[in-house]
Amino acid sequence: MAQEKFSYVIIGVGGVGGFYGIRLANAGADVHFLLRSYAEYVKQHGLLLESPDGDIRIEKPQAYGAADEMPRCDVVCVCLKSTQNEQLKTILPAVVKPGGVVLVFQNGVGIEQEVSVIVPQAKVGGAACFLCSHKVEPGHVRHEDYGRVTFGAHSDGMEDVLARIAGDFSDAGIPVDTADDLRCVRWKKLMWNVPFNALTIILDTTTNKIMACGQTRQLCRNIMVELLEAGRAQGFDIGMGFADKMLDDTAKMTPYKPSMKLDFELGRPMELEYIYERPIAIARRAGKPMPRIETLCAQLQFLDERNRMDANRNC
Amino acid sequence: MAQEKFSYVIIGVGGVGGFYGIRLANAGADVHFLLRSYAEYVKQHGLLLESPDGDIRIEKPQAYGAADEMPRCDVVCVCLKSTQNEQLKTILPAVVKPGGVVLVFQNGVGIEQEVSVIVPQAKVGGAACFLCSHKVEPGHVRHEDYGRVTFGAHSDGMEDVLARIAGDFSDAGIPVDTADDLRCVRWKKLMWNVPFNALTIILDTTTNKIMACGQTRQLCRNIMVELLEAGRAQGFDIGMGFADKMLDDTAKMTPYKPSMKLDFELGRPMELEYIYERPIAIARRAGKPMPRIETLCAQLQFLDERNRMDANRNC
Repeated sequence: MAQEKFSYVIIGVGGVGGFYGIRLANAGADVHFLLRSYAEYVKQHGLLLESPDGDIRIEKPQAYGAADEMPRCDVVCVCLKSTQNEQLKTILPAVVKPGGVVLVFQNGVGIEQEVSVIVPQAKVGGAACFLCSHKVEPGHVRHEDYGRVTFGAHSDGMEDVLARIAGDFSDAGIPVDTADDLRCVRWKKLMWNVPFNALTIILDTTTNKIMACGQTRQLCRNIMVELLEAGRAQGFDIGMGFADKMLDDTAKMTPYKPSMKLDFELGRPMELEYIYERPIAIARRAGKPMPRIETLCAQLQFLDERNRMDANRNC
Repeated sequence: MAQEKFSYVIIGVGGVGGFYGIRLANAGADVHFLLRSYAEYVKQHGLLLESPDGDIRIEKPQAYGAADEMPRCDVVCVCLKSTQNEQLKTILPAVVKPGGVVLVFQNGVGIEQEVSVIVPQAKVGGAACFLCSHKVEPGHVRHEDYGRVTFGAHSDGMEDVLARIAGDFSDAGIPVDTADDLRCVRWKKLMWNVPFNALTIILDTTTNKIMACGQTRQLCRNIMVELLEAGRAQGFDIGMGFADKMLDDTAKMTPYKPSMKLDFELGRPMELEYIYERPIAIARRAGKPMPRIETLCAQLQFLDERNRMDANRNC
C-alpha cells in the first residue's frame, strides 16, 4: 500500500525557500508557501525560479499571508533569515501537524534546540544547503549554482521520515544526502561561513581577494582550526583535510559575496547569533575558546550596531 | 668643572621630532635637524612649533639635507616613521659620536636591538612619548596635547648619560622621567596602540565609538590581557589595573584618530612591523601566543597591501 504523500510548508520564500519549494511544487508535491505581505502579489503573479537548469514557473501557488490561514502540514521547512526567528514561536505551533517534522534550513548552530522547545511534539531536523541563489523580487528567485542539501536528525527516531523527505527532494531533481551527525554538518558549514562572511564584511572585499593575500588566507585557516578543535571537544572530528580542501576550493571559486555581506550592504541585520555568538558560547563551555572568532564577532557586532543606527537615522 | 653640553641630532622632523627638537633648540641646546629634501626650505623659512603652551619659532635652525653633511653628535634622536627604518643603516653610523647615544622615539618593540647592531659602539636607549602632535607642513609642527617622554636604557651602563639627557629635556620644559625596564615601557605603550590603532582603521571609526560599544570595549580589554600575559611570560608584569585605567581614560578622551589611522587614510604604509609583527613573534617564542592580535595584524596587512596597490594604480 502506497503511503500518503507528505504535505510541505515553506516559511520564507527567498533564495533558499524559493529554490527548494518551487522545485518540490513543480515535481507535484503539495507545497504551501507562507509569504506574509507578498501573498496577494504572488497569488496573482505566480512564482518563478530562474535557473541554469531551466526556469520553472508555478502559475497558481498555494500562497498564504498568515500562518493561521494555512493547513497543518507534515513537513515544515524553516527558510527565513535567522534574524527573524522570533516569529517561529507563533508560526510553528500553527502549521506543523502533531508528530510532524520541522526542518531548519538556516545556517548556524542551536536553532534546532530552540525549535524543539517551541514545538515539543514535532520531530526536528536540520538541512544544510550548498546553494547560490537569491530573491530578485517577491516570488521571483534566481538560482546561480549548486543546490545540494544534507539532512540530519536532531530528534531521535526520525531516520525513516528523513529518508522519505529526501526521496521527495530527489524526485524534484535536488541533489540530497543524509548525515549521521547533524552537529558535525552544522560545524562544517561554519568552517566556511565564519571566516568568509566576517572577512568580506569587515575588510569590504570578496572571497578571492582574501585568498590572494597570504596573511588573510592563513587567518582563515587558523579560524578553521579553532572550529575544528571546538568540534573535537564536543566529540566529532571534522578533519584538517576538509578545511584545506575548502580553502583550495574557495581560492578557485569565482569572486563571491556571501549573503551576510549582501545583508550588511543593504543595511539589514546580520545573522550573528547562530553563526557567531552561539558557537563561541558552545566552544567556551567545551573548554576550547575561539579567540580569533571572538575578535571577528565583536567587530561584526560593532558594524551591525552602526548599521542599525544609520538605518534609524535614514527613517 | 661643568661638563660640556651635549649636541643632538633629530632624525625626522614630524610631530615627534619637531616637538622635542624645537623645544630643545629653543632652550639653547645644540640641535641639528636632518630634513632631507626639505632642508633648503627650512633653512629659509625656519622651524615653527605651534602649541597651547606658546608658539616657538627657530629662525635659523641647523638644518641638513643628508647625514654625511652633519657633525657627529652626542645624542641621536630617531623620530622617523618606523616604516623608514631601512635608512638608519646609512644615517646612524654617520651621525653618532663614538660612545654616543642613540635614542629611539618610535613606537613598537625590537628597534633598539636593531640599532645596536647598526652602531655597536653606541649606547642605545628608548624614549616612549605621550604626545599628540603632527606635522602641518615641512618645518611646521602643531602640538595639541601632552608631551611627556619616558626614557629607558637598552644598553648597559647608561643610567648617568640618560639622566643628563633627561636634564636637558627638563630644562626645555618637557615633562620627563626614566624607567628601570625599557621592555615594560614599550609593552605598556603597545597596550594602547595595538587595540586602538587596529580597530580605528579596520572599523573606520574613532576611539570614543569603540569604547561606546560594549563588544568592542571588551575586545580591547581582551587584547590588553593578551599583551599582559605575553609580558608576564617575558618576566615583567604590567598589571590589569594599568589596562583598566587606560580603558577608562580612553573612554573619557575626546574622539581621537591615532597617527597610524591618519597614515592609512593618506595611503601611506602602516607601522605594522614593530607594533604588531614583532610583538606577535616575541609572544609566540615566549609560549604565550596572542591570537586576537594575530587576527588584527592579518586584517591590517590585508588593508596595507590593498592601500599600496591603490597607491600604485594612482601613479
